[in-house]
Amino acid sequence: MASERIWTAALLVIGDEILSGRTQDRNISPIALWLNLQGIRLGEVRVVPDDHARIGDAVDALRRGYDYLFTTGGIGPTHDDITVDAIAAALGVPVIVHPRARATLEAYYAERGGLTEARLRMARVPQGADLIENPRSGAPGIRVGNIFILAGIPTVAASMLEALSGTIEGGRPLLSRTIGCWVAESEVALLLADTERAHPGCQIGSYPFFRDGRGGANFVVRSPDEAALEACRADLVARLQADGRDVAPEGL
Amino acid sequence: MASERIWTAALLVIGDEILSGRTQDRNISPIALWLNLQGIRLGEVRVVPDDHARIGDAVDALRRGYDYLFTTGGIGPTHDDITVDAIAAALGVPVIVHPRARATLEAYYAERGGLTEARLRMARVPQGADLIENPRSGAPGIRVGNIFILAGIPTVAASMLEALSGTIEGGRPLLSRTIGCWVAESEVALLLADTERAHPGCQIGSYPFFRDGRGGANFVVRSPDEAALEACRADLVARLQADGRDVAPEGL
Repeated sequence: MASERIWTAALLVIGDEILSGRTQDRNISPIALWLNLQGIRLGEVRVVPDDHARIGDAVDALRRGYDYLFTTGGIGPTHDDITVDAIAAALGVPVIVHPRARATLEAYYAERGGLTEARLRMARVPQGADLIENPRSGAPGIRVGNIFILAGIPTVAASMLEALSGTIEGGRPLLSRTIGCWVAESEVALLLADTERAHPGCQIGSYPFFRDGRGGANFVVRSPDEAALEACRADLVARLQADGRDVAPEGL
Repeated sequence: MASERIWTAALLVIGDEILSGRTQDRNISPIALWLNLQGIRLGEVRVVPDDHARIGDAVDALRRGYDYLFTTGGIGPTHDDITVDAIAAALGVPVIVHPRARATLEAYYAERGGLTEARLRMARVPQGADLIENPRSGAPGIRVGNIFILAGIPTVAASMLEALSGTIEGGRPLLSRTIGCWVAESEVALLLADTERAHPGCQIGSYPFFRDGRGGANFVVRSPDEAALEACRADLVARLQADGRDVAPEGL
């Protein structure tokens, strides 16, 4: 099989509220799942504070290290929303008011008190940027080069992702199957490693848990190749059963 | 006021399951809150896959960039648990079996099938490391230099943090107060910026939300200084009320 291009992305979560612990991030997991549907692997996440230099440094490293960079947070109308300025500075381009964003916001706020100076901030983009539709509120997301700038509010970020679906080049999604066992993972550690070794191109992850007073584990088999995945999954089930284990074929 | 030392930490979350979107991280927020109680600010989070080189690169950057580095994940008994090996390699030290960890695991597994080779993996530490107690399951966490290696399962990570409480040097915690308003944040953006400017040493974060069909925002005032914090909070409430806003003094 010819080796195939694997498309990668990084995610930069911008926000003091995540680092203070006040807010539990709810964007990483849905963005990761969405990226996989586009055939893109999330390779790294960073969370940084609302700090111009820290955002800029991370943007610069991640946009070079991955095919795509997604950011969440810091694109609202208030003084702590500095994502656009920091990314423009990192790219060495000025910030401009995007005419279509301005028109969209003018229409959206026509019956909501008008487009104030603060609201106009949400039409500011790095020069050369395109907009990402956001049907949910007037303020758009922003695409500039390989960077996709999304809102921090999870429902709004999700709506922007929906607008992007199918528009970004990717490869084959990584497929996965989960099986579960009421077993301490240490009892089957060698079995798991042997099975993975017997199936090149597949990875097996082991995720233990404690639930209802007893321990178990889910084993997740991953591969971009459906046939290889199924062969590995079936082999793992067979080996666990041969070892006397009760397997939950859909995971626990 | 003499400038005071601010203690900082980074968190490295290790695990394919977070990057695939399968698992929602539940460690960042509690670790951030716990760190703040110790007087330590969480300055950055990174999430990397179960990959030796990627873990090593992140460990190397973060242990140098912050006073402390915490890691979660990858310290179990299975083949995908490579955190200890990757960190030891990053530090340039060998991996050894820690005698006390071995003894603890031997006692723990005495009536649970014995200490197998896979389970013994959980006693492996970078040379020079100390153990972090884990009353919840036999396997300890690990401290080596300024690095604290915690489990990925949130309840186990929390139990290790509990064992560490009060043992790590920090400064003054960052205090915070939250007030809320049923207002579009764009309507009070300038007011927020003016208030922050009038109170050096305080930051005001604005966190909008949509709930029950309408929009509101919480404003979080942060400062290590109790008096400065209260002055800023009271001023913000007064300015919002003077602007005709209904303020929820405990947040929304």
